[in-house]
Amino acid sequence: MPLSSRIVPVILSGGAGTRLWPLSRESKSKQFFEFFPGGSMLTQTLARTPAGEFADPLIVCNAACAEMVMAHSAGRPVTLILEPAGRNTAPAIALAALALPEDALMLVSPSDHRIADLDAFHKAIATAAPLAEQDWLVTFGITPDRPETGYGYIRGGESIADGARRVERFVEKPDAITAQAYLDEGIYSWNAGIFLMRAGAFLDALGHYAPAMLAAARAAMDGAVREGAYIRPSADAFMASPSDSIDYAVMEKAENVAVVPVDMGWSDIGSWDALYELSEKDTQGNVHLGDVLSLDSARCMVRSEGPLVALSGVDDLVVVATGDAVMILPRGESQDTKNVVDALKESQHPILKR
Amino acid sequence: MPLSSRIVPVILSGGAGTRLWPLSRESKSKQFFEFFPGGSMLTQTLARTPAGEFADPLIVCNAACAEMVMAHSAGRPVTLILEPAGRNTAPAIALAALALPEDALMLVSPSDHRIADLDAFHKAIATAAPLAEQDWLVTFGITPDRPETGYGYIRGGESIADGARRVERFVEKPDAITAQAYLDEGIYSWNAGIFLMRAGAFLDALGHYAPAMLAAARAAMDGAVREGAYIRPSADAFMASPSDSIDYAVMEKAENVAVVPVDMGWSDIGSWDALYELSEKDTQGNVHLGDVLSLDSARCMVRSEGPLVALSGVDDLVVVATGDAVMILPRGESQDTKNVVDALKESQHPILKR
Repeated sequence: MPLSSRIVPVILSGGAGTRLWPLSRESKSKQFFEFFPGGSMLTQTLARTPAGEFADPLIVCNAACAEMVMAHSAGRPVTLILEPAGRNTAPAIALAALALPEDALMLVSPSDHRIADLDAFHKAIATAAPLAEQDWLVTFGITPDRPETGYGYIRGGESIADGARRVERFVEKPDAITAQAYLDEGIYSWNAGIFLMRAGAFLDALGHYAPAMLAAARAAMDGAVREGAYIRPSADAFMASPSDSIDYAVMEKAENVAVVPVDMGWSDIGSWDALYELSEKDTQGNVHLGDVLSLDSARCMVRSEGPLVALSGVDDLVVVATGDAVMILPRGESQDTKNVVDALKESQHPILKR
Repeated sequence: MPLSSRIVPVILSGGAGTRLWPLSRESKSKQFFEFFPGGSMLTQTLARTPAGEFADPLIVCNAACAEMVMAHSAGRPVTLILEPAGRNTAPAIALAALALPEDALMLVSPSDHRIADLDAFHKAIATAAPLAEQDWLVTFGITPDRPETGYGYIRGGESIADGARRVERFVEKPDAITAQAYLDEGIYSWNAGIFLMRAGAFLDALGHYAPAMLAAARAAMDGAVREGAYIRPSADAFMASPSDSIDYAVMEKAENVAVVPVDMGWSDIGSWDALYELSEKDTQGNVHLGDVLSLDSARCMVRSEGPLVALSGVDDLVVVATGDAVMILPRGESQDTKNVVDALKESQHPILKR
């Protein structure tokens, strides 16, 4: 039995980010959209751990999204753990760990990130697997290519195997000067939220550092109801859990945390500008998705989920159109999407509930 | 009986201009939209000839638009002549003339123009009425305020009354140098397609210069069916009519044509830029109509017929959003709307049929 067949993809499909508003919404978050040929982010996440090479995936998602998740699973035999409410990543992963045999290796990953170099990812998994077998909680650290201030960083310590180091510490999102220093130092990587861990090892650490969370997750799974591919944890028990990320609850505290640095064309598609940079452009430098007519326009990022978007004589714009909203801002300023969403929140615009 | 109660507003509500695409469509043209407070262009056109001061209006429109026209009549008792197909303005006016007593004074006007100074308009009508009684075909000439190349011009000749001249000639849309010369000369005005004519006088002229058209219109009205407020001319007869404008068919040929120059804040709202110029602006110089959120954006003309349009950090754009289309172009370049529509035609985009 090849090693990897013991590896169970655990895919976290929660979240309702607004960085790609007006596309991503409370009711339909980023992983359900296609940004690159080959299906939605979720579909492509599943495709990264092919059947035969990996065990059947476990997807932890909001109960309200169950059918949408199933529709994006492209026929893969998946099991869904349906969270009655979001409690951040640590409790979500705990549910998955409790649903698996103790010696299963959980490959935990978000469902809304891009990985361009699949070989590099698989090689990193192969590097990490023997460490995870030895109860290391392994995180995959993305080799940084710029002084990014939007991510947390991981500082690598002593080498523990070829291509792996003990984690010296996790650090919060740095300012620009610190980020440049991290980049120059060469032993930092980005924290991408992708982990390989033996289920039992994770539960041990959780019991040690966040016992209330483990108790809540265990009670939720003890009271779980299974309906076909759906596992419904006990709502009351799960909602009693503290809410925390795996980083805060476990990784930053545990001693047995390893990092496997990897350069795999990773991106969390954190903004329209990021998407523009990663997308194929036409000869005028435009990226068009959907029904777009462009005349004498250059370097625009245009996405339509329905309406025809016609541009004439404009340059360097981000234009995103859905059935009920259009957002326009200068390319390079797409972080201002947040300001737009904040202003809509402030005015209690009904669109935010859609 | 005051003179004006003999004046019958004859409103031409045909046309399917694309200069205000994507708002104006084949199925819903400009006059059915509100651009200035006070109702749609059609509603405001009707309001310019108030009940009591003017006779009940006659509206010539496409049969397919009958209900929409009625809905925009704001309860005014109107009669609609329903054209089975468009044959340009001369046959449309002929239908109206044939529906009226010979001595009715027809105040012919488009339904999609703006007149800001109603007093000036009414004074010009008072000037024109005695001339129309004497069988002058009176056209109201707009005093030009710029060397516009988008309109035809009227050259005034000898004075025939206070505030009125015989028309020396109609001239086609000039080039920029010619337009400037016209402006400097001071005896040219813009041809706005607004006329005051005795019905019988118009029919006489039509019979003289375009007898086939008169015959077709007469046959169409002889075979007309009246249903409540609707008059349905015989389709076969009307569709046999030559198609021509009143300018070409009659005005440019007849001897008894007078011009009453008037400065009344007239505009045909021929472009998004024109609309921007005429609209009230906020302190950042923006014009917003509909559900618009604007952050750090200036001098934009934004109109939404439904979707939320959110702008951040952009200047000098025209943005028009409907349920199925969004157009974005630089302000000052809104004549490029035509290029957009042409490109959509070329690609046979289905939206043009909506």
